[in-house]
Amino acid sequence: MEKREELYAGKAKSVYRTDSPDLFVLEFRDDTSAFDGEKKEQLNRKGMVNNRFNAFIMEKLEQAGVPTHFEGLLSPTESLVKNLDMIPVECVVRNISAGSLCRRLGVEEGINLTPPTFELFLKNDALHDPMVNESLAVSFGWATEAELAKMKELTFKVNEVLKTLFDDAGMLLVDYKLEFGRSGGEIVLGDEFSPDGCRIWDKETRKKMDKDRFRQGLGEVIEMYEEVGRRLGMTFE
Amino acid sequence: MEKREELYAGKAKSVYRTDSPDLFVLEFRDDTSAFDGEKKEQLNRKGMVNNRFNAFIMEKLEQAGVPTHFEGLLSPTESLVKNLDMIPVECVVRNISAGSLCRRLGVEEGINLTPPTFELFLKNDALHDPMVNESLAVSFGWATEAELAKMKELTFKVNEVLKTLFDDAGMLLVDYKLEFGRSGGEIVLGDEFSPDGCRIWDKETRKKMDKDRFRQGLGEVIEMYEEVGRRLGMTFE
Ligand SMILES: Nc1ncnc2c1ncn2[C@@H]1O[C@H](COP(=O)(O)OP(=O)(O)O)[C@@H](O)[C@H]1O
Ligand SMILES: Nc1ncnc2c1ncn2[C@@H]1O[C@H](COP(=O)(O)OP(=O)(O)O)[C@@H](O)[C@H]1O
Ligand SMILES: [Mg+2]
Ligand SMILES: [Mg+2]
Repeated sequence: MEKREELYAGKAKSVYRTDSPDLFVLEFRDDTSAFDGEKKEQLNRKGMVNNRFNAFIMEKLEQAGVPTHFEGLLSPTESLVKNLDMIPVECVVRNISAGSLCRRLGVEEGINLTPPTFELFLKNDALHDPMVNESLAVSFGWATEAELAKMKELTFKVNEVLKTLFDDAGMLLVDYKLEFGRSGGEIVLGDEFSPDGCRIWDKETRKKMDKDRFRQGLGEVIEMYEEVGRRLGMTFE
Repeated sequence: MEKREELYAGKAKSVYRTDSPDLFVLEFRDDTSAFDGEKKEQLNRKGMVNNRFNAFIMEKLEQAGVPTHFEGLLSPTESLVKNLDMIPVECVVRNISAGSLCRRLGVEEGINLTPPTFELFLKNDALHDPMVNESLAVSFGWATEAELAKMKELTFKVNEVLKTLFDDAGMLLVDYKLEFGRSGGEIVLGDEFSPDGCRIWDKETRKKMDKDRFRQGLGEVIEMYEEVGRRLGMTFE
């Protein structure tokens, strides 16, 4: 496998073509951003930590029957992934209230949501990732009804797998965001699962162990990402 | 039927108790508001026009099989309605893009939406009626899955009936907002259907004939509401 030219540089990762049209290299950079790119910083070791973190989680999900784009680790900061036709809609599941939900609905942080909630957001920084729904997604042509149903089903399946995984390691999976794409007629989990795109709290102290440490300037951001990973059984160099 | 004390004064209407616990008097006032109550004015004759407009539409909908709270006209500005346990979620159907949808998604006004879209908003002025969805409504206890399914079904049924009615009278039903409530285990259409809560354009010229005339300071607000009513076959004194 040969790495070719960069196709796209996002806020935290870069996508490269390879000699196979079906495979991309996903590079995890140290760039960290929040508030639709308004707050930006380089966090040492983040690319490496998130690359390993994502690999570990994607393998767990694949084992549980969730089709993912992950093919394997290539280097400390790079993974080989399937070339997906990405769907520009983010799927969010929440087990506990936090973040934008609290601001939008005027509710406190930390409320248990039963059943866990499911929301869709349009991936568009300029519009600040507005909330959308299945009906808008279909009428604007972002995805079909069947694709959206599959995305919802898989997003909840991820919750079943990961809630237990985090719980067993003394942590609460508060919420998370997933991105899906199409590959040969199938809906496949793409992008990444890392503390950059989810909220994780310590089960006893409710200490934040995710990107909210960066958003809220709490310090020890990557140290905490590594702590989460270690508790789940990952090793970082 | 005896009118008793005022129970609730909203931005445009007031609700009164009656000697029957199952019936309320709904009074349509001349008060007009926009932008969650930030812009306010008294528009002469509006209460009378909307009361008649609503009566006419509710009767059409009832005939088409949509259960409504409307029982009959009581006076130029008052109607007798069923006492509903209101669900604090607004149902919006759009046939053509306009208003908040254009701002949120960065799309132009006037795009045909196929199929028509369906959105839910939490009725909460302080929070600026945030967009929600079925999942949030269930988890926060605003309505059950079954109630939401019924509300969606009825909202689209209203579209079938009214799109044709307006089209036959040379107008486009661009979008509209409905509120539902519970009555004896049934989901019933409540509140009002009037040019205050929908968008109507002239089919040929696309001239705005609804509350956007007030929002955008276009003048001739109530004159145009009456024109819409007359085209549909209503008479005002
Ligand atoms: N398997 C894949 N195939 C194609 N594109 C992908 C794949 N996985 C993720 N992407 C896209 O690559 C980009 C990853 O970089 P990121 O820094 O997260 O970008 P962004 O700022 O757009 O969120 C995202 O736009 C994501 O949708
Ligand atoms: N049949 C009904 N039973 C009880 N409440 C109703 C009924 N129909 C409408 N309402 C409520 O009465 C109020 C109508 O007044 P309005 O001026 O529209 O209020 P708002 O400013 O809350 O929108 C609304 O809150 C609406 O939900
Ligand atoms: Mg991203
Ligand atoms: Mg109202």
